[in-house]
Amino acid sequence: MDNQNIGFYFVMISLILVCCFSVFSLASEKNSVLNLMPVPEKIVPGDGKFRLDQNFTISVHGKMGSRLYKGASRVLTRLAARTGFFFPREYITPQSSGTSGSLQIRCQREGKIKLNEDESYRLTVTPGKIYLAAATDIGVLHGVETFLQLLSVDEQGYYFPALTIEDKPRFPWRGLMIDACRHFMPVEVIKRNLDGMAAVKMNVLHWHLSEDQGFRVECKTFPKLHELGSDGFYYTQTQIREIIDYAADRGIRVMPEFDIPGHATSWFVGYPQYASAPGPYTIERKWGIMDPVFNPAIEATYKFFDAFFKEMTGLFPDEFMHIGGDENNGKQWNNNPEIQAFMKKNNIPDNHALQSYFNQRILKILTKYNKKMIGWDEIFQPDMPTNIVIHSWRGREAMEQSAIMCYQTILSNGYYIDLIQPSDFHYLNDPIPEDSPLTDKQKKFILGGEATMWSEFVGPETVDSRIWPRTAAIAERFWSPGSVRDVDDMYRRMEIISFMLENLGLTHEKNHTMMLRRLANNQNITPLKTLIDVIEPVKRYRRNALRPHTSFSPMTRVIDAAKPDAQIARNFRKLVDLFLSDKNKNSGLLSEITEWLHLWQVNHKKLQKTIALSPVLIEIEPQSANLNSCADIGLQAIEYIQKGQKPPQNWLDIQSETIKKIKQPVAQTELMILSAIEKLVKKAGKSTG
Amino acid sequence: MDNQNIGFYFVMISLILVCCFSVFSLASEKNSVLNLMPVPEKIVPGDGKFRLDQNFTISVHGKMGSRLYKGASRVLTRLAARTGFFFPREYITPQSSGTSGSLQIRCQREGKIKLNEDESYRLTVTPGKIYLAAATDIGVLHGVETFLQLLSVDEQGYYFPALTIEDKPRFPWRGLMIDACRHFMPVEVIKRNLDGMAAVKMNVLHWHLSEDQGFRVECKTFPKLHELGSDGFYYTQTQIREIIDYAADRGIRVMPEFDIPGHATSWFVGYPQYASAPGPYTIERKWGIMDPVFNPAIEATYKFFDAFFKEMTGLFPDEFMHIGGDENNGKQWNNNPEIQAFMKKNNIPDNHALQSYFNQRILKILTKYNKKMIGWDEIFQPDMPTNIVIHSWRGREAMEQSAIMCYQTILSNGYYIDLIQPSDFHYLNDPIPEDSPLTDKQKKFILGGEATMWSEFVGPETVDSRIWPRTAAIAERFWSPGSVRDVDDMYRRMEIISFMLENLGLTHEKNHTMMLRRLANNQNITPLKTLIDVIEPVKRYRRNALRPHTSFSPMTRVIDAAKPDAQIARNFRKLVDLFLSDKNKNSGLLSEITEWLHLWQVNHKKLQKTIALSPVLIEIEPQSANLNSCADIGLQAIEYIQKGQKPPQNWLDIQSETIKKIKQPVAQTELMILSAIEKLVKKAGKSTG
Repeated sequence: MDNQNIGFYFVMISLILVCCFSVFSLASEKNSVLNLMPVPEKIVPGDGKFRLDQNFTISVHGKMGSRLYKGASRVLTRLAARTGFFFPREYITPQSSGTSGSLQIRCQREGKIKLNEDESYRLTVTPGKIYLAAATDIGVLHGVETFLQLLSVDEQGYYFPALTIEDKPRFPWRGLMIDACRHFMPVEVIKRNLDGMAAVKMNVLHWHLSEDQGFRVECKTFPKLHELGSDGFYYTQTQIREIIDYAADRGIRVMPEFDIPGHATSWFVGYPQYASAPGPYTIERKWGIMDPVFNPAIEATYKFFDAFFKEMTGLFPDEFMHIGGDENNGKQWNNNPEIQAFMKKNNIPDNHALQSYFNQRILKILTKYNKKMIGWDEIFQPDMPTNIVIHSWRGREAMEQSAIMCYQTILSNGYYIDLIQPSDFHYLNDPIPEDSPLTDKQKKFILGGEATMWSEFVGPETVDSRIWPRTAAIAERFWSPGSVRDVDDMYRRMEIISFMLENLGLTHEKNHTMMLRRLANNQNITPLKTLIDVIEPVKRYRRNALRPHTSFSPMTRVIDAAKPDAQIARNFRKLVDLFLSDKNKNSGLLSEITEWLHLWQVNHKKLQKTIALSPVLIEIEPQSANLNSCADIGLQAIEYIQKGQKPPQNWLDIQSETIKKIKQPVAQTELMILSAIEKLVKKAGKSTG
Repeated sequence: MDNQNIGFYFVMISLILVCCFSVFSLASEKNSVLNLMPVPEKIVPGDGKFRLDQNFTISVHGKMGSRLYKGASRVLTRLAARTGFFFPREYITPQSSGTSGSLQIRCQREGKIKLNEDESYRLTVTPGKIYLAAATDIGVLHGVETFLQLLSVDEQGYYFPALTIEDKPRFPWRGLMIDACRHFMPVEVIKRNLDGMAAVKMNVLHWHLSEDQGFRVECKTFPKLHELGSDGFYYTQTQIREIIDYAADRGIRVMPEFDIPGHATSWFVGYPQYASAPGPYTIERKWGIMDPVFNPAIEATYKFFDAFFKEMTGLFPDEFMHIGGDENNGKQWNNNPEIQAFMKKNNIPDNHALQSYFNQRILKILTKYNKKMIGWDEIFQPDMPTNIVIHSWRGREAMEQSAIMCYQTILSNGYYIDLIQPSDFHYLNDPIPEDSPLTDKQKKFILGGEATMWSEFVGPETVDSRIWPRTAAIAERFWSPGSVRDVDDMYRRMEIISFMLENLGLTHEKNHTMMLRRLANNQNITPLKTLIDVIEPVKRYRRNALRPHTSFSPMTRVIDAAKPDAQIARNFRKLVDLFLSDKNKNSGLLSEITEWLHLWQVNHKKLQKTIALSPVLIEIEPQSANLNSCADIGLQAIEYIQKGQKPPQNWLDIQSETIKKIKQPVAQTELMILSAIEKLVKKAGKSTG
C-alpha cells in the first residue's frame, strides 16, 4: 500500500453510511464526515480547525492571467453568499496579489485549455492559514472547489477542518455533452451548467450544435444554415466566444459537434443541393432517425465543408472537432442512382464504406485546419487512420476494440443521462473496470468519458433536472480512483452536492417546485409532491414510444416534473430491503415503513381534490390510485408477515394481478415503490402460520 | 353613465372580495370572478363558454411583420405549458395565415414602438370561436395577455368564459426602470422582466446604464468607459440590440439612461479629464451621493458628449434619451477655481444654473441627433425649453408644476419599489387623482409613470422579488380607469398574477424557496419560512443606515429572502381588524387568529434548532424570539378580551415596553404582525370587567 492509497483508505473508512431522508450540507461537529464529490485521491487529516470569520481574505502569489484572479474573486462571492459575511474585499487582481491572505494561492503557470494539461493541486488547511498550491491555475480552480465543499459548521460557527489533500484526475477527458438542437438551450443554460461542471471538476463541454431539428450556430459563410435552419434559435458567434471564454475561465474545453453526414435535415432547408435527395426540406419536428443525409458523391459537398470548417475551426479554439457520424440509415444513398454509380465506379462496396470515404475526405479538411477528428463509434472503420478519436455510444465493446486497435477513445455508453436511469447505474459503469480485458498499454488509449444530455424531452426549464445531480456521480467516476465505488456513500454525498449546485445557480430543485405549483394550478402542492416523489419517467426510449412527441410538445407535465432516481422511493426500497433481511425485526424500520404506507394510502383522496381544479393532472389520476393500492397491499402484507400467518392463495393471486397491472406506465411514468411492495407480498407468501 | 362605464361597473360588481390565504389561479365554476390584471376598460359578459381542447388553433389574418406571428406562436406555447395539450401546430408564419383558427387574430397595421401608438384591442369569446381584433399588432399583444389570463377551469376541464372586452390604456407611458449599474443585471434578467412587463401591459423599459458604481454599455468611441468602468460587467452592443428586439417583439420601448453630470464616477476611471476634480478615479463600491461630476466649464466635455451621444443615439432607436441629472452635490464644482471663474465670466449665479447650462448644451447635442431629452426633476429649470420631459421622483409637486408650465412629465415618486413599501401604497398613488389641482388641459401633459427598481440591494437572484408582483399593481394604475381602486380586490388578483408571472419565467417565488434552503443550510425550511412569512425588510433608506453595504455585500441574508408586502402578515392584520370591529365576535375569526398565534408561539424553539446548524441565521434569532413574544402577548390579550376582563396596569405597562422593544429592527427586518398585536393589547386595555 503506497502513500496515495493510505489517503484514499482514510476517506473510505471515514465515510459513514448515513441512510436518512434529510441531509445537512455542512457537516456538523457530531457528524464530521467529509462531503467531497468527487472524492480526492489522497486526504491526510490534520489537527484543529480553521475558523471562518468576516476578516477572511485571499491572496494570490505572483502574476498570472485573469482566469486565476477571477476564480479567486468568485470564491469570496460564494463564501459570502453561504455565510452572510461582509468580507473586507475588492476584486482580486494582479495588482492586489501577495502572500498575506487567510487563503494563500500559488501556482507556477497558466494552464492550457487542452487535453492532458496538469490539473493536480494540493490543499493544506491549518488552524492559522490555508494553502492552495498547483502547477497550473486550472489545478487551483479544482482545489478551490474542494475548499468550498469543505465548509463546515459546529456550535462556534463556520470552519474548515485541518487536513492536507493531494489530488489529481484519473482520466484527462471528463465531459458533458449538451444537445442544443432538439431543444435550444440559451446562453444562460450553458453558463450555469458550466458552473456545475466546474464544481465537480469536469473539463469538457461537448456542444451538440447541428441536428435534423435545428442548426444552432451563426454561419457567416453559409448564412442560410442558421437563418433557415434554426427557427431563429441559434447562437451568434459573439455568444459562442462568450461561452468559450466563460468555460476557459473555469478550466473547461468547449468541443463543438457538427453531426454529419446524417442527422442533417436542418442544413438542407437552406442548402438542399448537398443532400442525397432533392428538396425542398423543412426543419424536422419529430424525433428519431431521419433519412436526409449529405451527398458524398459530389465534389460540391467537400467544397462546402471546406469553407464551412474553415470558418468553424476558426471560431472554436479546441483542438478537437466532433463530426458526429451516427445513425445514417442510408436510405437516401440507396435511392440515388448517381450515388450508386459513384460507388460502383470507385469500388465502394456498401454504405459503411461510403461513409468511411466521406469521413476520410472530412478528415483531410479538418487536418488542413489543424483539428483532430472525433466522432461517434460508427466512424470506427478499419481503414481510418489512428489519429482520430472514437466516441463509444453503442456499447463499451467499441471503446475496447478502439483501444486494442490503438485509437484514442472516450466512453458515453452507460452515461446517457437522458434515458432517466439511476445514478448508481452510471456510477458503477467504469471505462476501465477491474476486470477490463485490456492491457495497461491499451488502457492508456481510453481518455475518459462523457455524460450525454440529448434534448428530445428537455428544454431550458427542465434540462438541469436531468443533468444534476446524477452527473456529479459520473464526474466522480472520471476523476476519483477506480476503487471509490460505495453506492450508498455516493448517494449520501450526491444529495449534499445537489444542494451546493443549486447555490451555484442550477435550477433542478427550484424549477421542480415551480413545476409542481404550475401543475397544481397554484393550489397546495403537498399531495401532488407526495405522488411525484415516488414516480419516475419511463426509462430509455419508451417515452416517445408510448406517446409520440414533437418539438412543440409541452414539457410541463407530471413526467417532466418527476425526477430521475426518485430519492424517496429509493430510500423506501432500501428500508424494505433492510426490514426483510433483518432477523431481529427492527421495529424502527417497520414503523418507518408503515408511516410511509399510511401517508400514501390517504394521499389519493387529497390529490383528487387538486386534480379537480387542475385538468392537466387528470392523466396521472390512475397512478395516484396505484399508489393507494400499493399502500393497501403493503400494509396487508406486513400484517401477514408480522403475524407470521400465511395469506390465502386467493389474496396472493389478487395482489399479483394488481401488481402486474400497476407495472404498466401511467402518463409515461412508473411507480418506483412497486418492487418493494412486490417483495413484501412475496415475503408474506412465504410466511408459515 | 356611458357605455364604457357600464362595462367597468360590471367588473366592479362582479369582483367579489375574497380574503383567503390560498388562491387558485384559474377561476373555478363556483367562484367565477375574473382575475384580470390590469382590469380592462370595458367588459360585457356573454353566454356560455369556449371549451379548450387539444385541437385548439390560432389563425392570423393578413400579412404583418414578424412580431405578430411570433407573439401568436408564443400563445400556443404558453397554453400548452399550462394545460399539457399537444396542439396540432407549427410556428405561425405569414405563409400559414388565414381565418380558420379557434382563435382568430386580425389587425390593421404594424404598430410603431413609439409613445402614443394605438394599443387598444377588442376580444370576443363565444362558445364556438374567439376573435381578437386591434388597430395594431401591439394591441393584439395586449389582447393576447388578457386572453391568457381568462383561462378558467370547471368540472369539464379548461374553458374561456364568453364575453366581449374593449380595452385601451389610460396613460401612454407605463414604465419600469431597471438599474443595471449598482448591480449588473445579465441579459436573461432583462428578458424575463420584459416578459413580465408585457404580461401586465407595460410598454417602457427605462434602462439605467451608467452610475458611480458602473458603466454598463460597450462604447466603441470611448472604449475605456466599459473596459475600465464596469469590472467586466457590461452589455455588448449586440446584446443591447438583442434586448431592444426582444422588447419590440413585446410592444415595449427601450429608453436608455446615461446619468449626467453627477452619478458619474465610473466614467472617470477611464476618462478623468472630463471630471471637475483631478483623478485618478476608481469604481465606487459604496452607496449614496458621491462628489464626482462632469466639468461643464470646458468645451472638451461637450465634444466628448457629442461623440458619445452620436454613437448611443444610433444604438438606441427610441425617440427619448434619459440624461438623469439627479443628485449632483456640487462639491467638485465649488472646489474648482476654473469652474468658479467660468461661472463668474458667464454670469452663472449658482450650481443649479450651471447644471441648467450643462443641460442646455446636452439638449443641443441630443436634438442634433434627433432625440428628445428627458431627465429627473432636477433638470426642471425655468429657462429650459418645453420640449423636454420631466421625470418626477422627489415629489408629485414637480410633476404638477411641470404640467402647469406645459412640460410633458411622468411620475415615479410613489413608485420606488426598491424602498419595500406595500403594494397598496403604490397602487393608490395616482398620477392624476380625483382631487388633482390640474385643469383638463394640464392633465394632458402627464404621460404616465414608471416603477423604479434601483439596485443597491438587489442582484440577479433577488431583483424579480422586488419588482414582482408589486409592479403589477402599478401597471394597473397606469392602464386601468382611475376609478379602479379596490385594494382588497387588487391584492386578491395580484396573488394570481404573481403565479402567472412565475409561469413566464420570473423567479420571485422559486428563488425565495431556494434562498430559504440555502439559509437553512439544507435543513427543513418550515420554521424559517414561518418567521420569514411575517417579517419584511426595513423600508425606505434604513437598510444602509442600519448597516452600511458595498457592492460586495452578500444579498443572501434573511432580509433578502424576506418579501416586501408580506402576505401572511397582511392577512393576519386584516383578520385582527375584522375581529376587533366585529360586534358579533365571530368565533371563526377568533379561532383563526389563535391558530396563527399558536403556530408562532412554538416556532422559536424549532427555529433555534435550524440556527444551530446554520450560523448565517444567528442574526435573526432575536426576531424569532420577538415573534414568540408577540404570540404570547396576543394570546394573553385575547384571553382578557374574551373574558371582558381588564388586565392589570402592570401587564399593560410590560406589554407596552415589550412592543416598543420589538419595534426596533433586527438584522434590518421588521416584524409585520406587531401592529396587530398592539391593537389586541389596546383592546384588552379597554375591556371592562
